[in-house]
Amino acid sequence: MATRSPTDTALRHLSPAGATRLLAGWHAGGPAYLALADALRAAVLAGTLAPLTRLPSERELASALGVSRTTTAAAYARLRELGFAVSRVGSGTVAVLPRGGFRTLAPRPVAGDAPAQDPRGTLPDGVRPGREGAAPAAAAGRAASAGRAASAGQAAALRTGSLGTGPDDLLDLAQATPAAPPALHDAFARALEALPAYLGTGGYAHFGIEPLREAIASRYRERGVPTTADQILVTTGAQQAITLLAQTFVGQRDPVVVESPTYYHAMEALRRAGGRLVGVPVGDVEQLESAVRQTRPRLVYLVPDFHNPTGASLDPDRRAAVRALADRYGVTVVGDETLTELAIDPAAAITDPFAGDGTSPHLVTVGSASKTFWGGLRVGWVRADVQVVARLARTRQSMDIATAVLEQLAVIELLGRREELLPGRLAGLRERRDTTVALLRDALPGWHVPTPPGGLCLWVDLGLPVAQAFTAAAGAEGVLVNAGPVFTPDGSARDRVRLTYTRTTEELALAVPALARAWDRVAGRGPAVR
Amino acid sequence: MATRSPTDTALRHLSPAGATRLLAGWHAGGPAYLALADALRAAVLAGTLAPLTRLPSERELASALGVSRTTTAAAYARLRELGFAVSRVGSGTVAVLPRGGFRTLAPRPVAGDAPAQDPRGTLPDGVRPGREGAAPAAAAGRAASAGRAASAGQAAALRTGSLGTGPDDLLDLAQATPAAPPALHDAFARALEALPAYLGTGGYAHFGIEPLREAIASRYRERGVPTTADQILVTTGAQQAITLLAQTFVGQRDPVVVESPTYYHAMEALRRAGGRLVGVPVGDVEQLESAVRQTRPRLVYLVPDFHNPTGASLDPDRRAAVRALADRYGVTVVGDETLTELAIDPAAAITDPFAGDGTSPHLVTVGSASKTFWGGLRVGWVRADVQVVARLARTRQSMDIATAVLEQLAVIELLGRREELLPGRLAGLRERRDTTVALLRDALPGWHVPTPPGGLCLWVDLGLPVAQAFTAAAGAEGVLVNAGPVFTPDGSARDRVRLTYTRTTEELALAVPALARAWDRVAGRGPAVR
Repeated sequence: MATRSPTDTALRHLSPAGATRLLAGWHAGGPAYLALADALRAAVLAGTLAPLTRLPSERELASALGVSRTTTAAAYARLRELGFAVSRVGSGTVAVLPRGGFRTLAPRPVAGDAPAQDPRGTLPDGVRPGREGAAPAAAAGRAASAGRAASAGQAAALRTGSLGTGPDDLLDLAQATPAAPPALHDAFARALEALPAYLGTGGYAHFGIEPLREAIASRYRERGVPTTADQILVTTGAQQAITLLAQTFVGQRDPVVVESPTYYHAMEALRRAGGRLVGVPVGDVEQLESAVRQTRPRLVYLVPDFHNPTGASLDPDRRAAVRALADRYGVTVVGDETLTELAIDPAAAITDPFAGDGTSPHLVTVGSASKTFWGGLRVGWVRADVQVVARLARTRQSMDIATAVLEQLAVIELLGRREELLPGRLAGLRERRDTTVALLRDALPGWHVPTPPGGLCLWVDLGLPVAQAFTAAAGAEGVLVNAGPVFTPDGSARDRVRLTYTRTTEELALAVPALARAWDRVAGRGPAVR
Repeated sequence: MATRSPTDTALRHLSPAGATRLLAGWHAGGPAYLALADALRAAVLAGTLAPLTRLPSERELASALGVSRTTTAAAYARLRELGFAVSRVGSGTVAVLPRGGFRTLAPRPVAGDAPAQDPRGTLPDGVRPGREGAAPAAAAGRAASAGRAASAGQAAALRTGSLGTGPDDLLDLAQATPAAPPALHDAFARALEALPAYLGTGGYAHFGIEPLREAIASRYRERGVPTTADQILVTTGAQQAITLLAQTFVGQRDPVVVESPTYYHAMEALRRAGGRLVGVPVGDVEQLESAVRQTRPRLVYLVPDFHNPTGASLDPDRRAAVRALADRYGVTVVGDETLTELAIDPAAAITDPFAGDGTSPHLVTVGSASKTFWGGLRVGWVRADVQVVARLARTRQSMDIATAVLEQLAVIELLGRREELLPGRLAGLRERRDTTVALLRDALPGWHVPTPPGGLCLWVDLGLPVAQAFTAAAGAEGVLVNAGPVFTPDGSARDRVRLTYTRTTEELALAVPALARAWDRVAGRGPAVR
């Protein structure tokens, strides 16, 4: 009788043609089988080849790449040695991430507390990038530990007596998660004072508690967008808002237009709903319109303000063009405003909100408290036409029912103190951005390192299409960054990496030299990472 | 140029054949067109006909039901009069719920506070049932207000000067949401003391914070199920856990076996993932095995303890048979333990946990703090094989990233005080259950009203297949209950309604006579509700 193991149930498949695209330019020199193994490993670490993907057979891959079967067999054997593949009867060769435990969010060490652990959130083997795409890079550290030795990551792991199974000192320039402002604790304390009034209720607010819906609506009005509370759906973070939009608007094989590059987990949510992603260059409204005209998408997803990962904001003319396009084609255009409040350069502040005059039923905006205040607060929202809000709420009830009440009360407090809290947060980000940019430009003069006016990350041009190999090498040096292809629907942007600037100067003083070493190994004097 | 309005993008369609099934036994007497309109309205109110569903054309429905087109035309006209349908060029006739605003979770009235509002959470027009399926019934109250007059619901609405657009006095026997225990506030206060240690982190714990994972694992160990923290994924409530399992295991048209009846929103989550639901009678392991053998489902979803809605628990032999079946067929069987701690009759306490000895990779359990403690706490969990946990976490990152940190800290407190808190909660539920059962048996001797040993609801046998009409009539009397078909994959159980017993004796003293009046109108002396 055929049985199915939990793992088998979700194997993806990589076609020979897909492998050819994925491995374009794989042969960086040295023995072919090692170069091929490196390219495949780099793809796994970069997140462009998902763990639990079944690879083409040795024969298929050999003919697809025009190499001998001996080469592909040796490459798969090497991948297995490194822990990046398993071969099983019936399943062929399956890409995996090396075994190891999980890193888990734990308290910062304080007297009498548990030992220090990694603060970045849990990143299991096989987990794709987190909100800010840390996982593949994080895995790189463990991968390095599992593979060749003598890396900062492994040294750290050895110090803590673990190889990816527990705490380590990997430096995270992949996830953009600033610490909380000091006022956050106080906001929760005030929220707790307001809580008793809700404890007599069942606690389910499928649209969000009314005072928060009103506070969010009033923030839109402050920004010049007429908005009523019944146009607001409170969600469990912006990511859930995007998932709700995807699950509500997008069906199997429906086209969805996104910017390329764009926010990784928006693509994942849209794909999970069945969407076929069509990428258009950031800020190119002409190509956006032609994509909409040709594919008639169910949804368009944009990050108009301090775009993730490029940092660009749409100018007023392009915003107007996008709004006109939404109404002309009757297509719902989602503007993700998660980063909108993070105008690091005051002159770059967003003065022309995506929703415009707020009257179009085709414009939907998504917002969040996670970047403006703290990621550990899981509160986001959608602003949309009342009927759209009702449909999203219907989907939402069988997704997670409602958002936690105390979290919502805390966000009311934080929104009320926004003008007091934000300047300090922005000043801190400005300092870290400028330090990161200066150190990178000094250490890696061959890179093009931009200075984004806002947001949380740098979209660096390496000048060479080796992003995956560099990401793997950086991981081996103990630094987490994300390869450009993670952020594109088609795996392009191989010459880009995304680095975040939420780390301290002390951390950067360790991370940047490590990145320079990794770069030397991938593009410079040393051999390609292996 | 064709444009698509946000509403058009998600219209469901009701086929003539589907209409025939849905309307079986629709002709309860009186003019055919009125009976047909009533049956359709009742289906909308019962949640068996989703708002925004496009109905068959008048001609199609007429031939499907074997009536004249005049009858179907008049029935649709009547539905439009009542506000339950709209007709639009291009969209034909679409079922809707009458316009009206949203009811929103708001503070209980206290001196100097906002006016009293409905405590049940927001239930917009068009929203399907909430966690405990309140929406269709809630809509019934508004529908009645929008439709015929002289109902308690409308009277209440008139007293508060609103017709479904704000506060009203509808009595909710549909949603099972007990108020929070007094200790909840204290648990949050203690959690707040532990929060500072996390504020220096990014706040994203994709698997949950380690102390909570350990606390949950230790609760399983207390129950006799060996469990390690890395087998636990903390989720944003049990509903998200079910959604994650559905999105991870179930693909388009994959068969999924569920009990019939079962928890409404589990069915919704499984359907959204593409699952084809196959129902088997509650507790019938033989039929369960034959369904598994014949359909080879991706997933089996069961509520083994104090089953929702029947209240039944699987006996030890059947549990053993289910475990053996999971391993024999290699099928993942999910046991939803959301209600497991709610053993109202101490003798009924669950002593044989669903996961058994905890060794099977095919058994997955889902748990929650929402019913044991409070619905406004949005924390649940999955216990599964480490590899399954890793796969769920990967899905989870693009669903909502992580669960709020303070919520998790509060649940650690509450789990630690479980033995102190639970007896009071169970005593309160026992009193309400017994009062509800006694009042119903006295007022409605023709019903079969069981006394479930645990859980939160009664699965009442009306003795007549008029559940939808009765639900509509009860709504018109201002009382919210759910029709049996809401809980079955095939719309059966027309002779059942689900009532919850989380209301006070005072509320019940109003609700039960109203239910008796509704029953008289549907099954007794009066005409069918119109």
